Amino acid sequence: MRFIRYREGGAARYGALEGEAVRPLPGAPWEGGAPSGAARPLEGLELLPPVPAAKIVCIGRNYVAHARELGHDVPTEPLIFLKPSTSLLAPGGTVLIPPESSRVDYEGELALVIGRRARRVARHSWRDVVLGITAGLDVTARDLQKKDGQWSRAKGFDTFCPLGPSVDTELDPADLLVETRVNGEVRQSARTTLMIFDVGTLVAHISAAMTLEPGDVILTGTPEGVGPLAPGDAVELAIEGLLPLRVSVAREG
Amino acid sequence: MRFIRYREGGAARYGALEGEAVRPLPGAPWEGGAPSGAARPLEGLELLPPVPAAKIVCIGRNYVAHARELGHDVPTEPLIFLKPSTSLLAPGGTVLIPPESSRVDYEGELALVIGRRARRVARHSWRDVVLGITAGLDVTARDLQKKDGQWSRAKGFDTFCPLGPSVDTELDPADLLVETRVNGEVRQSARTTLMIFDVGTLVAHISAAMTLEPGDVILTGTPEGVGPLAPGDAVELAIEGLLPLRVSVAREG
Repeated sequence: MRFIRYREGGAARYGALEGEAVRPLPGAPWEGGAPSGAARPLEGLELLPPVPAAKIVCIGRNYVAHARELGHDVPTEPLIFLKPSTSLLAPGGTVLIPPESSRVDYEGELALVIGRRARRVARHSWRDVVLGITAGLDVTARDLQKKDGQWSRAKGFDTFCPLGPSVDTELDPADLLVETRVNGEVRQSARTTLMIFDVGTLVAHISAAMTLEPGDVILTGTPEGVGPLAPGDAVELAIEGLLPLRVSVAREG
Repeated sequence: MRFIRYREGGAARYGALEGEAVRPLPGAPWEGGAPSGAARPLEGLELLPPVPAAKIVCIGRNYVAHARELGHDVPTEPLIFLKPSTSLLAPGGTVLIPPESSRVDYEGELALVIGRRARRVARHSWRDVVLGITAGLDVTARDLQKKDGQWSRAKGFDTFCPLGPSVDTELDPADLLVETRVNGEVRQSARTTLMIFDVGTLVAHISAAMTLEPGDVILTGTPEGVGPLAPGDAVELAIEGLLPLRVSVAREG
């Protein structure tokens, strides 16, 4: 199944995507229940990030070439950080470059959506808790990241976590092409096979510390080719088998 | 007003604290509405963290003596990091020392509770968004904090954010004694006047990056005197004018 989330009558609703049509789900996809009611065209719906993501856990330096392009060693275990849920941006939205930063980068990433509450998940059991996958951008104020040392502010600005548009519950994340394009030009292009720590290892490592909950999101790290965004840019994150995530860029204020 | 949150009939409820009695509130305190219905004794209620805290924003090194005891320079602007809401622990709960760490520290802190959605709050307008104050422990796996560099895992384990028990909406946070006691012995004792960045500066700095939302929490940093916890320890965080926060400590598993 593929699902999206959208706003209708002031409320957030989940819908199953069937081609270009959307059929409403009775609740969150992890609560079960079949789509029902009249289909409506995807086009014209006000899309939301596909899950509310109370917790957005991110992984730093999970591709060798990206760790090296920023001058870092390759880590020996996954490096965790958090983005606040207020940084979520709906598909089609606008990343806002704040006045505090003069260098805001795209980082295209495969995102995992959690479907079950769990702690200390065994590496081989990750499929029990990962409901599906989607596309996510870990937008980063590179200058503030270096200045602060801790990354929470630099990666936590409003609009710095575009996510979606749809979650696919059947696709295997192990070997997918992740491609980020800026104004149509390919900037990042790597397969998820290049991840240093695979999905099972990430889920095990994160859940050894913190309980994962339905609707939580894990951003699995970005491949090489990160670079700056400028007002007016159009960014597309195309992950093989998923609908592409598209956002634009503007200056805040 | 002082309010608490408790579980009753399977649901989370807010209640106004009147001496030793609690009168139910119709909803979250930031939604307005007077307490009504029969008072019940505070003792015997199953307390929850006083707010759900979708976002827990913490400040590192906000007291000179604490920055120095860990060998750090005094920062020139507030240093932000995040704890996940799954790290919340109810008053009276048990901090669990995970097998991954051999050094878990207490850090007693004044906590701010947000009552209004806001971005880019001016320093002098912090009272418009801070609904009240409470007590919070920023429990930290010191060894993992050093190992990871990023602090999210070391400070993000389940049970690592005891909070409460009550939120006081009238007390001025500017000059309060913060005292952490372990097994009755005073380990931290400092006034909030010693904060490097005051409450207004913290709210302005954080909200310049991320929208604050009702129920969010800001932990304002810990004074000197941090130290390790051991299974069996009883920790009490007493902030002048607030009900003390008490938790115990055990090994996980």
